[in-house]
Amino acid sequence: MTTSLVPPSAGGPSADAPPALGRASALMAPAMDAATERLDPSLHDAVRHHLAGGGKHVRAGLVLLASSAVGGTHEDSVLGAVAVELVHNYSLLHDDIIDGDRERRHRPTVWARYGVGVAIVVGDALAALAMQLLLDDPTPRRVRAAQVLADANQNMIGGQSADMAFEGRAAVGVEECLAMERGKTGALLSAACAMGGALGGGTEQQVGLLAAYGDNLGIAFQAVDDLLGIWGEPARTGKPVGADLMARKKTLPVSVAMAAGGEGAAELEAILGRELSDADVARATALIEASGARDEVAALADDHLQAALAALDEAELLAAPKEELMAVARYVTARDR
Amino acid sequence: MTTSLVPPSAGGPSADAPPALGRASALMAPAMDAATERLDPSLHDAVRHHLAGGGKHVRAGLVLLASSAVGGTHEDSVLGAVAVELVHNYSLLHDDIIDGDRERRHRPTVWARYGVGVAIVVGDALAALAMQLLLDDPTPRRVRAAQVLADANQNMIGGQSADMAFEGRAAVGVEECLAMERGKTGALLSAACAMGGALGGGTEQQVGLLAAYGDNLGIAFQAVDDLLGIWGEPARTGKPVGADLMARKKTLPVSVAMAAGGEGAAELEAILGRELSDADVARATALIEASGARDEVAALADDHLQAALAALDEAELLAAPKEELMAVARYVTARDR
Repeated sequence: MTTSLVPPSAGGPSADAPPALGRASALMAPAMDAATERLDPSLHDAVRHHLAGGGKHVRAGLVLLASSAVGGTHEDSVLGAVAVELVHNYSLLHDDIIDGDRERRHRPTVWARYGVGVAIVVGDALAALAMQLLLDDPTPRRVRAAQVLADANQNMIGGQSADMAFEGRAAVGVEECLAMERGKTGALLSAACAMGGALGGGTEQQVGLLAAYGDNLGIAFQAVDDLLGIWGEPARTGKPVGADLMARKKTLPVSVAMAAGGEGAAELEAILGRELSDADVARATALIEASGARDEVAALADDHLQAALAALDEAELLAAPKEELMAVARYVTARDR
Repeated sequence: MTTSLVPPSAGGPSADAPPALGRASALMAPAMDAATERLDPSLHDAVRHHLAGGGKHVRAGLVLLASSAVGGTHEDSVLGAVAVELVHNYSLLHDDIIDGDRERRHRPTVWARYGVGVAIVVGDALAALAMQLLLDDPTPRRVRAAQVLADANQNMIGGQSADMAFEGRAAVGVEECLAMERGKTGALLSAACAMGGALGGGTEQQVGLLAAYGDNLGIAFQAVDDLLGIWGEPARTGKPVGADLMARKKTLPVSVAMAAGGEGAAELEAILGRELSDADVARATALIEASGARDEVAALADDHLQAALAALDEAELLAAPKEELMAVARYVTARDR
């Protein structure tokens, strides 16, 4: 077949995103296209449908920037960029089934359009393809990247599984919640940076510090996401007000507020133990704010952003890509997004 | 935690199985146990439930025998045995969701007991774990095994996806059907043999011939399975009479009978195009037999079994493990199983 699996309308980062993400989208597109052509033809329609939804390609951008930052070229790292986006997309496909989400990026999700079975196998195919890409011609750098990606995939799955287990619990500790978010979000961001460092030929120390940058960035991103899930403007977040509370998610602000104890925590736990009315959502929001959790989580996000930037400083990176990594960090943790 | 994820009651091959499969089960158990302990604790219950169902461990046996047959030791190949069984089990977990099967080996499937979401992430976790095991300490032999396994996983997914696509079609060609079954069943059996050969230090030629043995074995096994799906005794197969026809599966006997053309093929296509009554199943069975498809598929199974054995002859293997590989081939293709 000659038609592209990734149509020209495939989106990519929005206009306010750091230029590095747009460059990553453009660099990655032909390689993603060539990779997905390898899949069984019976999978092509659903893969095309899913990838046409676009995305910000933050993880691909991180691979390419991390590689550049240690003096690497795009030749090897573009494979890593495709691999990490494949793993990200497989997780979206499966998460959409698990969460029962019928829409993503204003389009029907794969399970909603093609059925649960198709969405499962398409996700499985993308995950397998990521490993195939890195192992086709297994240079030591690619093997290292494959190793990092396999571990990150497992940590991501652990985070997703913990998140699901939390739904059935009345309260979740702050440390547990952080560990879950570190897995669910931080693992793949961290892996993207470490893979870029490895594929670009960085030292083990540089790879470790780039991984630390990605890990901290993941926590900061998730903390901001949790704040926006409660206090974000629906017009910007694309979710109704208080969507996370309505779904009784044990996010960081909730776990911090509950850890504060006292009457407020008890009332919050009671509210989150039942189906929430709009009044319940408003009351829970007020309780969390009154506990100081909103400020505390914002401070936690800032601390992790600073830790991410400090890891970059320590890694002795090339100046220009380092600046771009800093810009990406500020972009994905911006509270007005 | 100190409790084993693989309880002592975990089954394993039945008494009439070649002894090599029993040895494989015993050898693999502690390594499987150690591997699954690495998973997030939130996954342990469901993993334990699934693995406690047992299984024949044919794929693990093939890895260990193939390794021995090229002069390898069990030390390295046991990792490959665990990895291939992990991939097999992840595919079972996901297939059970896709097929809506509520029971496997007389126990509730993971999705039926813990929900679809849990079954998806447990499957994902086992697939990721397989790659982690082989890449933890990436010697060239293990990297080669990981490469083989990643490719086989993709081919298996392609077969599963094609099988799903066939359900919506009136007729499927014999070549298409063979390609689907080669992916769905042959890919992992072939990979098991190639991985054993690679991990045991076999030459590329030996690895290739072992892969050919597994590939042919896969087709022979699937052809026999298709015959049993129509003419097998329910007491032995554990499935009701004509279960595959009732489900309108486009198996080899069906595709061969349809390819024969004529009035019989037209009537068969008409029957398989609607919900089948018991009388329809009986009539379809008679039509397939009258077309000569039953004999033809039996001959095809024999041809592939002979091709599998010929590949062993050509590979210059050690005599004792080669004999055992021949015994496994005869066991999994026996028509009275």
